[in-house]
Amino acid sequence: MAVGYSRLPELLPVAGMRLAATAAGIRYQGRDDLALLEFAPGSTCAAVFTRNAFCAAPVVVAREHLERTAPRYLLINSGNANAGTGERGLRDARRCCELVAARAGCASGEVLPFSTGVIGEYLPVERFDTAMPALFDALAADNWKAAAEAIMTTDTVAKGVSRTLEIGSGKVTVTGIAKGAGMIRPDMATMLAFIATDAGIDASLQQGCLKQAVERSFNRITVDGDTSTNDACVLVATGQSGVTLSAGAGLEAFGGLLAEVCEVLAQLIVRDAEGASKFVTIDVSGGRDAGECLQVAYTVAHSPLVKTALYASDPNWGRILAAVGRAGLPDLDIDRIVIRLGDVCIVRDGGVADGYREENGQRVMGEAEITIGIELGRGTARECIWTSDLSHDYVTINAEYRT
Amino acid sequence: MAVGYSRLPELLPVAGMRLAATAAGIRYQGRDDLALLEFAPGSTCAAVFTRNAFCAAPVVVAREHLERTAPRYLLINSGNANAGTGERGLRDARRCCELVAARAGCASGEVLPFSTGVIGEYLPVERFDTAMPALFDALAADNWKAAAEAIMTTDTVAKGVSRTLEIGSGKVTVTGIAKGAGMIRPDMATMLAFIATDAGIDASLQQGCLKQAVERSFNRITVDGDTSTNDACVLVATGQSGVTLSAGAGLEAFGGLLAEVCEVLAQLIVRDAEGASKFVTIDVSGGRDAGECLQVAYTVAHSPLVKTALYASDPNWGRILAAVGRAGLPDLDIDRIVIRLGDVCIVRDGGVADGYREENGQRVMGEAEITIGIELGRGTARECIWTSDLSHDYVTINAEYRT
Repeated sequence: MAVGYSRLPELLPVAGMRLAATAAGIRYQGRDDLALLEFAPGSTCAAVFTRNAFCAAPVVVAREHLERTAPRYLLINSGNANAGTGERGLRDARRCCELVAARAGCASGEVLPFSTGVIGEYLPVERFDTAMPALFDALAADNWKAAAEAIMTTDTVAKGVSRTLEIGSGKVTVTGIAKGAGMIRPDMATMLAFIATDAGIDASLQQGCLKQAVERSFNRITVDGDTSTNDACVLVATGQSGVTLSAGAGLEAFGGLLAEVCEVLAQLIVRDAEGASKFVTIDVSGGRDAGECLQVAYTVAHSPLVKTALYASDPNWGRILAAVGRAGLPDLDIDRIVIRLGDVCIVRDGGVADGYREENGQRVMGEAEITIGIELGRGTARECIWTSDLSHDYVTINAEYRT
Repeated sequence: MAVGYSRLPELLPVAGMRLAATAAGIRYQGRDDLALLEFAPGSTCAAVFTRNAFCAAPVVVAREHLERTAPRYLLINSGNANAGTGERGLRDARRCCELVAARAGCASGEVLPFSTGVIGEYLPVERFDTAMPALFDALAADNWKAAAEAIMTTDTVAKGVSRTLEIGSGKVTVTGIAKGAGMIRPDMATMLAFIATDAGIDASLQQGCLKQAVERSFNRITVDGDTSTNDACVLVATGQSGVTLSAGAGLEAFGGLLAEVCEVLAQLIVRDAEGASKFVTIDVSGGRDAGECLQVAYTVAHSPLVKTALYASDPNWGRILAAVGRAGLPDLDIDRIVIRLGDVCIVRDGGVADGYREENGQRVMGEAEITIGIELGRGTARECIWTSDLSHDYVTINAEYRT
């Protein structure tokens, strides 16, 4: 059960796109596991992919296709990641694109493939073939929910969000869906996000727009530091709202909207992290630059001792302070550090804060959503990241998942 | 229960030193929790301490004292780390040194204090005072075992080792003890090791000798990447064997002996890691330099997904390969990587190895001691580290420890 999120909100159609989902029987039985997103001609696309050197076949093929032309179709399957599958994996991913292209009457380079699921098994391409007629028959503008459900693997809830904004004389819609139960699944290879807008965006600016939004959302979440082989986030702009964005105030407003959609989706992934019982914001301020704020934030977020203390609702300030201390910041003056749990100051002057009472820390740690505030007292930079706790269920899920 | 280690072996006395242990009631009841190591005048000392910026009061005081003169006494308590205790913590640590000095008739700067246990509580100095007569009365050359037991915190077994070696016409003894249930305890602040030898060592060489040995032992183990606030390793040389070492073959032989003692002690800490059911060697070869071998080794060792797979005895090669892929090596060619579990090749050419059968991987993963061999295929550097798995017991111990 995701922390602070019970079900998918209403997802708004985006002019110039249709979606479909169907049950292809790739791995799961009795549920949809194949989704297709179709975009009108003239749509533009930006995408970011995993930085893992070991990237999956569909990531290689999607990158190749994107270099040549804008996509008309995104084909996404769950249940099989087509990763660690060598040359045959590449052939299979290309063949899936050809199946879509043949039916749609477009070039196979206009199809991007995405896969998520188990690593190291070959894709059952013949099931993709069989599923194509039903998939194309199902294309409709109001199928976001079906697509959000079809791309789930171990997610406990479907994830999506819509936002609209008046820009100039027009109205722009952004709708996005994501899957991922943490950034933590090299073998249920992990995070995918698909975002569409009816805005038109100058092609030279769209990639920058997406990169910036991803940097402060999907790149600010961590469950355990593992980066998957299949991670991808795609933004397609159809331009059918009549609003066209180039450099200036309109683009800035759109950037804010996109950032909000990405942040909601990214946080949903953490809320639904494997075994998570807490949603934790780590807010590091007073750093010399963003890099050192993030260094401290991730050291705290990845500390198994901090994570087990969060799970236990134990206001164990020593573990947080020790993690800050080993983050590797040069000339760090521990005496200037202030640490807060929510509104309770727990550390000041190199030790437990004067007047701190365990029951106050305990009150904050007992909540499902917790903010750990860390002031470094040596600059003006500030960064936030989001993470979850480390629970018995995490161990159970990951120890028992495959065998 | 430690993996592959059931009890303390015989620990040999070292000429020129005596040890004592007593029950001071610092935190534990009904067991020794205070140890004293006494060295004859003329002994020389080398030490390495935690690199955590948040270091405990006794570490600060021990460093200060060491800069001035060689120690005659090491005073070690368990149950209380005297960390996060600010100015008062420093005063308390100095006062404990004065108590020893007053009784011994030496300068307080000739006493080094060490503390391990809970963070953030003040040291009960009066109990140290009360314990002094009994502590001094107990001093004896054959008390290594009692000292090894007195410094335990959550350790399940006392840890120690002795080695002897003929060097030139004489025989040198090295005996060491350690405590630590993983490098993983900022709040049971963690690892201490005390090693003594009857060799005499040129003072300018002793620190280098220790640093080198520590680098390839205590700095090659990890349970979860957390570095404690109190870590220390001390080597005292009494010179009473009659063997005196300066640069040359003798020193090299001694260096090998010391490295062996450090390696055994370091491995004992991993074998006794919290919740550990596996002792895991990660052997990375074919790197361009030592740094990138270690980078890969630690990324694999710290991956919660790899650690839970080890716990589950699941030969999940996808998790290992994905961890290698995200280790951040530039231009890493995944197709050149070979991964072995023990003698079984599991990954080659970017995917599962030809002819690999799950039952073979399963056989290796079912053992209590496992080697993960990773060949990067891009150079000649090689590094080994040791780690443990991530079990339900780890979560239980760390979630329930303090509250």
